[in-house]
Amino acid sequence: MQIGIQLVTPILGLLGLVVAFCIYKRIMRLPGGDGKVADIASQIHTGAMVFMRRELQILVPFVAVVGILLIFKDPWESLAFFMGALASFLAGFIGMYAATKANVRTTIAAKERGAGAALSMAFAGGSVMGLTIASMGLIGIGGLFLFFGETAHDVHVIHGFPMGAAVVAIFFRVGGGIFTKAADIGADLVGKVEAGIPEDDPRNPGVIADNVGDNVGDVAGMGSDLFESYCNAQIATMAIAATMALPQVANLMGIEAAAGTDELRPVLMYLPLAMTSLGIVCAMLGLLIVKLASGQQPARALRFGTIGAALLFIAASYFVITAFDASAVIWGAVLTGTVAGIVIGLSTKYFTGGKPVRGIARASETGVATVIISGLSVGLFSVAIPALTAAIAILIASNLAGLYGVAIASVGMLATIGITMAIDAYGPVADNAGGIAEMSEMGPETRKITDELDEVGNTTAAIGKGFAIGAAGLAALSLVVAFASVIGQRIADLEIEAGTMSAVEGAGIERILDFFPLSLTDPLVLVGIFIGIMFPVLNGAITMNAVGNAAHDLIEEIRRQFREIPGLLEGKAKPDSARCIDIATKGALKRMALPGSLAVFGPVLVGFLFGANILGGVLVGALMGCFLLALFMSNSGGAWDNAKKYVEKGHFGGKGSESHKATVVGDTVGDPLKDTSGPSMNILINVMAIVSLIIAPIIPLQPIF
Amino acid sequence: MQIGIQLVTPILGLLGLVVAFCIYKRIMRLPGGDGKVADIASQIHTGAMVFMRRELQILVPFVAVVGILLIFKDPWESLAFFMGALASFLAGFIGMYAATKANVRTTIAAKERGAGAALSMAFAGGSVMGLTIASMGLIGIGGLFLFFGETAHDVHVIHGFPMGAAVVAIFFRVGGGIFTKAADIGADLVGKVEAGIPEDDPRNPGVIADNVGDNVGDVAGMGSDLFESYCNAQIATMAIAATMALPQVANLMGIEAAAGTDELRPVLMYLPLAMTSLGIVCAMLGLLIVKLASGQQPARALRFGTIGAALLFIAASYFVITAFDASAVIWGAVLTGTVAGIVIGLSTKYFTGGKPVRGIARASETGVATVIISGLSVGLFSVAIPALTAAIAILIASNLAGLYGVAIASVGMLATIGITMAIDAYGPVADNAGGIAEMSEMGPETRKITDELDEVGNTTAAIGKGFAIGAAGLAALSLVVAFASVIGQRIADLEIEAGTMSAVEGAGIERILDFFPLSLTDPLVLVGIFIGIMFPVLNGAITMNAVGNAAHDLIEEIRRQFREIPGLLEGKAKPDSARCIDIATKGALKRMALPGSLAVFGPVLVGFLFGANILGGVLVGALMGCFLLALFMSNSGGAWDNAKKYVEKGHFGGKGSESHKATVVGDTVGDPLKDTSGPSMNILINVMAIVSLIIAPIIPLQPIF
Repeated sequence: MQIGIQLVTPILGLLGLVVAFCIYKRIMRLPGGDGKVADIASQIHTGAMVFMRRELQILVPFVAVVGILLIFKDPWESLAFFMGALASFLAGFIGMYAATKANVRTTIAAKERGAGAALSMAFAGGSVMGLTIASMGLIGIGGLFLFFGETAHDVHVIHGFPMGAAVVAIFFRVGGGIFTKAADIGADLVGKVEAGIPEDDPRNPGVIADNVGDNVGDVAGMGSDLFESYCNAQIATMAIAATMALPQVANLMGIEAAAGTDELRPVLMYLPLAMTSLGIVCAMLGLLIVKLASGQQPARALRFGTIGAALLFIAASYFVITAFDASAVIWGAVLTGTVAGIVIGLSTKYFTGGKPVRGIARASETGVATVIISGLSVGLFSVAIPALTAAIAILIASNLAGLYGVAIASVGMLATIGITMAIDAYGPVADNAGGIAEMSEMGPETRKITDELDEVGNTTAAIGKGFAIGAAGLAALSLVVAFASVIGQRIADLEIEAGTMSAVEGAGIERILDFFPLSLTDPLVLVGIFIGIMFPVLNGAITMNAVGNAAHDLIEEIRRQFREIPGLLEGKAKPDSARCIDIATKGALKRMALPGSLAVFGPVLVGFLFGANILGGVLVGALMGCFLLALFMSNSGGAWDNAKKYVEKGHFGGKGSESHKATVVGDTVGDPLKDTSGPSMNILINVMAIVSLIIAPIIPLQPIF
Repeated sequence: MQIGIQLVTPILGLLGLVVAFCIYKRIMRLPGGDGKVADIASQIHTGAMVFMRRELQILVPFVAVVGILLIFKDPWESLAFFMGALASFLAGFIGMYAATKANVRTTIAAKERGAGAALSMAFAGGSVMGLTIASMGLIGIGGLFLFFGETAHDVHVIHGFPMGAAVVAIFFRVGGGIFTKAADIGADLVGKVEAGIPEDDPRNPGVIADNVGDNVGDVAGMGSDLFESYCNAQIATMAIAATMALPQVANLMGIEAAAGTDELRPVLMYLPLAMTSLGIVCAMLGLLIVKLASGQQPARALRFGTIGAALLFIAASYFVITAFDASAVIWGAVLTGTVAGIVIGLSTKYFTGGKPVRGIARASETGVATVIISGLSVGLFSVAIPALTAAIAILIASNLAGLYGVAIASVGMLATIGITMAIDAYGPVADNAGGIAEMSEMGPETRKITDELDEVGNTTAAIGKGFAIGAAGLAALSLVVAFASVIGQRIADLEIEAGTMSAVEGAGIERILDFFPLSLTDPLVLVGIFIGIMFPVLNGAITMNAVGNAAHDLIEEIRRQFREIPGLLEGKAKPDSARCIDIATKGALKRMALPGSLAVFGPVLVGFLFGANILGGVLVGALMGCFLLALFMSNSGGAWDNAKKYVEKGHFGGKGSESHKATVVGDTVGDPLKDTSGPSMNILINVMAIVSLIIAPIIPLQPIF
């Protein structure tokens, strides 16, 4: 590999940050409103910052403890860990900061310049997030690769980076997820149901918290989640390349002889970074397409941009891969991943927006129970296509390029994250813009525009969620393989050391993984699989309860304010929104300790007590459970949400009818499923997998008893 | 092994049938009522028979086709298949027949002789079912073993038996499950909600169908399901023993040398039958204990009987195992299974009856949505302890006696099925008795007694369901291992044939499974796991929809009768109950084709197209998904049911309050989950596993493309 080429990666990362900054500046050049609007926007912004600061108070000690523990394993890895934590924090923070500036500007654009301008603004807000995430990954992993990427021996240092990102992601995704739904349910229940005032009414003390929730949960949370998958996919590919047997290296580099093959290994290790480097370029071009094409039909421009970026990436990656003298089969694997991501996204869109949703809406005619049953059924159905897609993708990618192919397929899925994440983050910005329009009483026209934007946002969010689950699943699977590779390498080294295998034989082995097959007929692996199932079910149950309990705290406070603040319901006094944010924040952070600890310390406990075979089984069991429950929960929740909206458009009796009431219950049930528990599954499996990879070199090979 | 000892098994089976017949005679000696009571009872009995006859019209051709296809593989195996189908049918039919005679006699006993006599009668009804199931297994498998059990080569013939049982079980469990819930929901929705008449009111045309449903779903369905697990556990142990490597055989027989070890293999093959033979003896003694002790405190007598039978079995099995000169470690594995079954049952009891249920009831104060959310959360939580228990059981059993230990642990769990199933079947008999009391307007005292019996029944049913899932899971897991053993043996034979391994080496190998490790780092296995997830989710979604649609058919009919039969609501005309049964039957049978075909033909399709590795992965993926969803669905459903009952007892406002309405919705949502979709998961994985074992000798080893 040419020396210096790897420098391109962090440089492109820095370029991405510069572009993100320019977009941010462009956002800030536009009017941020004044008077009431500015006041509300500032409350949301401040609320988000309050949440962030509070979160940091717990996050910093937690990161410090884990990081210090890691020093005992490897000081450099610990440094990488701190870097990863910082990168993830910055990505989430910057993205959220920009989103809380873009929201009010979207409202004003909607009022003053119409739908197109509003959509552009909301998308610009999302773009800052997308580019920052992609850039942080390139700078962090690309930078570490310059120092530790050249030898297979040192590459484990880089694993610290996604581990750091993972810890932050738990806080942002799970803590943010609990906050956002607690605020949503709390504000709705007391406001809409008990006090009988509309959604987003400024008299409701919980409304600002609700809007803050969109930012901390759906922007920062979603961003850190995807960032984690993005890093994991690259790291897993690198780790597999680092431990791959020489004949496989030769095969993927398209050469016959194994002599000197080891020197080509760094190329395969660098390729995932080459893909994401190319990905950020394509993403930036995609953003440019959106900008150039957004004159008349902004929704179409969005589509053009995303599809354009993906096509560009697919075409260009072929030339990049062959330019590295690597085999074109690798390109086939990348293509497989990209296509699989799109298919899973579209399947999600169908189940949360198509015929199934109308079926749920129709079920509302026979009452609440049938709405719930049909929603659960839709959720279960929606798991099948992504599972089949994942299966086909694994089959094709591994036929082309072995397990390295599976790993780099997940990189292909996530390479254009710069633009896909921009579209994801656009949704909550649009949602916030609507909230601000309502609270500042801007009138029905503005609200109509923001509602439309919100609807586009809901669809993109659904696709994004499906995509996130698919990507997390494939990235985690690759990490599990990487984990097995590391253990396999250890066993092979032990055999060479013990003299049962010569070093020459070792160099000739076909599959390093044969030394650690994780056999399903190994009782220890079966034990692990059953233990693994416990993680997603406990995580799901705990996070659902957490939302309920945190909402309960908030409900008490909102009721108290309505009761004790004179003139509040008449609009003569201002609610104490800050206190609501404070309570929701405390409630959320307190209750994320348990699921967070489960994800971080669970694998450590299992690994050190029960050894590599059981831990391997645990990862697979947890992965299966997470994949199933994540899709089931997110999609049934999304379907209920849209069934309610469908009825609200006038079907089956429309707003206020019995049907509508039934779908409202469905929506409420779906809220914690789709925005807290479901997404937390992604992060759970990602964290478990990366933690396991980190401890792979030091855990016992067999149970210690 | 002493010649002739195996004869004991079918003889004990015949003895069991004789005892069952005596109990049946004892039931029939008691008065069956007259007038209105007899009429209602006869309607229920006839309805159940109509359902059975209809089911046979589809079942017989289906069984014939599958059986004829099997002839091409092995005519003897096909014969065993037909025997298994007949045995399962007879067990279900006889059990249901007795239950529909015992129900009315329970009502009359409650009226005339009080709670103790009523409980005895209901339990006698259940005992016929329990003993018939155990006997059919012993006669069928024990009889086949006499001819095909002596050599490892022929034993595959016996696999046809559980396969036949499996096909019948799908019809009984899934078809019956759809029928029972469609009837339940249909009758309740039109009767209680729309017409405003009480539950089980004789004016409601759907009420007889509802009571028929208890018999076809909860008696025949549950029975055939457990029968299938019972057979699977024995067959899996036998298959593993047949393909075990010689050093393992020597180890389990407690001898050092491998010479002559192969002759000891039949002992290990027979041991599961020895365990179930002992089991039926202990079950009969348990029934005797119940009879002797049921004078004063019948509920306590029930407990004494079950625990007594289990303790007796645990103690006696030690002597049986050592009498066969087998190692005592096998006894340890049997003990592990028995204890694990009890723990899983108790865990189910807690989650569907303990503190979690009161939590759901409390959630009803904040409305329907929180009832649903907290029920889903309880369902998820309830998966964790059974998963952990299964993991620990596998760990201990395999440490003691390898994978043979895991298989025989599942036999231990099911050995006393004669009495455990009697307790399961007692519930629906008591439920029916209550229905008959209500319909024949016997007055509140009788109803109070039957309600109490019903409540005891609900608790035992919950334990039974958890137990059934645990047993099905462990039995299916053993079948997967047996499947892998068969494939491993094939690969080893191929190597000997090809000369890459000598026969002597073959005799010395430690683990036949090393030839077919089903490695989680094999991409094909991973592909299989993702495909495997599709089965439970599709099964769950399809069966839930089936209940909804079949209920819809019935709702239309009940509404029509209320509308068109003059004087029906005033009690002056009789409803056309037979037509309701007819419609529910048609609706259920039509809609079970899809899930049934999925279970039977899914593995065949995967196996022949994609080969052994992917099929192995599919089984594991499906097993994990089934285990998770079965517990989640059954337990959340059970918890909602009991939360409603808790509120009805006067908590949180009691009957008629808003809280009560909220819990009624929860109960309705839970109905198809706990009685159709959840239990269908057991049968799905059992069928998939046994079908795979059957086709294991003939499927391609690699994908055919």
